[in-house]
Amino acid sequence: MSLFITFEGIEGSGKTTQIRRLATHLRERGHAVVQTREPGGCRIADAIRSILLDAANANLVPTAELLLYAAARRQHVEEIIQPALAGGHIVLCDRFTDATLAYQGFGRGLSLDLIAELNRLAGADLVPDLTLLFELPVATGLGRALGRIEQSDGPAEDRFEQESLAFHERVRQGYLTLAEQNPHRFRLIAAAGAPDEVFAQAAAAIEDRLTARRLP
Amino acid sequence: MSLFITFEGIEGSGKTTQIRRLATHLRERGHAVVQTREPGGCRIADAIRSILLDAANANLVPTAELLLYAAARRQHVEEIIQPALAGGHIVLCDRFTDATLAYQGFGRGLSLDLIAELNRLAGADLVPDLTLLFELPVATGLGRALGRIEQSDGPAEDRFEQESLAFHERVRQGYLTLAEQNPHRFRLIAAAGAPDEVFAQAAAAIEDRLTARRLP
Repeated sequence: MSLFITFEGIEGSGKTTQIRRLATHLRERGHAVVQTREPGGCRIADAIRSILLDAANANLVPTAELLLYAAARRQHVEEIIQPALAGGHIVLCDRFTDATLAYQGFGRGLSLDLIAELNRLAGADLVPDLTLLFELPVATGLGRALGRIEQSDGPAEDRFEQESLAFHERVRQGYLTLAEQNPHRFRLIAAAGAPDEVFAQAAAAIEDRLTARRLP
Repeated sequence: MSLFITFEGIEGSGKTTQIRRLATHLRERGHAVVQTREPGGCRIADAIRSILLDAANANLVPTAELLLYAAARRQHVEEIIQPALAGGHIVLCDRFTDATLAYQGFGRGLSLDLIAELNRLAGADLVPDLTLLFELPVATGLGRALGRIEQSDGPAEDRFEQESLAFHERVRQGYLTLAEQNPHRFRLIAAAGAPDEVFAQAAAAIEDRLTARRLP
């Protein structure tokens, strides 16, 4: 049974770790699962991701950034997500259209109407069946994310972590607004607690949606 | 005196060589000149260009391609073209918004309305003062372009040259349609002849526009 589930939240919300656990969990229960992420998820979109997240590209202008996210998304949707859903997979996607509204719209102040229009174009009108919003205070999330960066010796994918606390608070509030506007699609996950508790909430939300799908 | 001049035409039309000569010519006459190109023209847009023109990215889907061109253009306009024009330069740009209409619209069959809308967004409403369309038969142009590729030992920037003759003929006819729709902005340059003759036509067209600018 195909299901398109997106994972959203501020930096350090733990969603990436949880996606891995949930993918394993769902596979153990017999589901075919595709685990992917944005920006990225395929060769071309990964190349775009490296431009977007490179700290050396701090002079990337906001509208160009928006168009790059849209380009990566359209490639990812057509190359990975649509074929997986057509093949009956559960697709777990780390960030999708809501992230663009939250970061570029609520965070940077770009036009929400323009972003919504580009989201429709980039997403090829695909809307998630379920969006899990990992919700926690900005200070907690950024503390986790900064710890992760200090331990990393890979390339500096930290352009967003360098933004101000106020920016991340706008992103968080933006996500909460989107959840209010789409109550049937969103489920809030309290993400400040222990990983096992966060996992239990997310797994239950997915199980609810799968059960609803099975009803006649 | 600032002037924004774009150079358009199919592959092998000789416009890149002519831009170099025209830049030298205009500088010798005392003008401040910025010579640039699309896709590219600055660090971030060059990184996008390498994705667009890499023959290994043949599976790039049409709408993602369109969005990548738009992203590169917006960065280029804000970072290079607008500041140069504000500083009183003549900007010579190898391809601009018309190329997207010609290649992705007339060539690939993507919606001309969608492209026009993305062009306005990407170009930040900037319209060239003069567009020189280097016009020649497709067979002549492609013969030149293929000769150039065979002599090159750089990376294979040949995704467009690998398209069919019919594609390039649609691009050529598309350019001619755009010229008909924008008669005051476009000047046709007969580009099949000797380089000196082509240069003389292009230099005269620019001189006409500069003269018109100087009139009260």
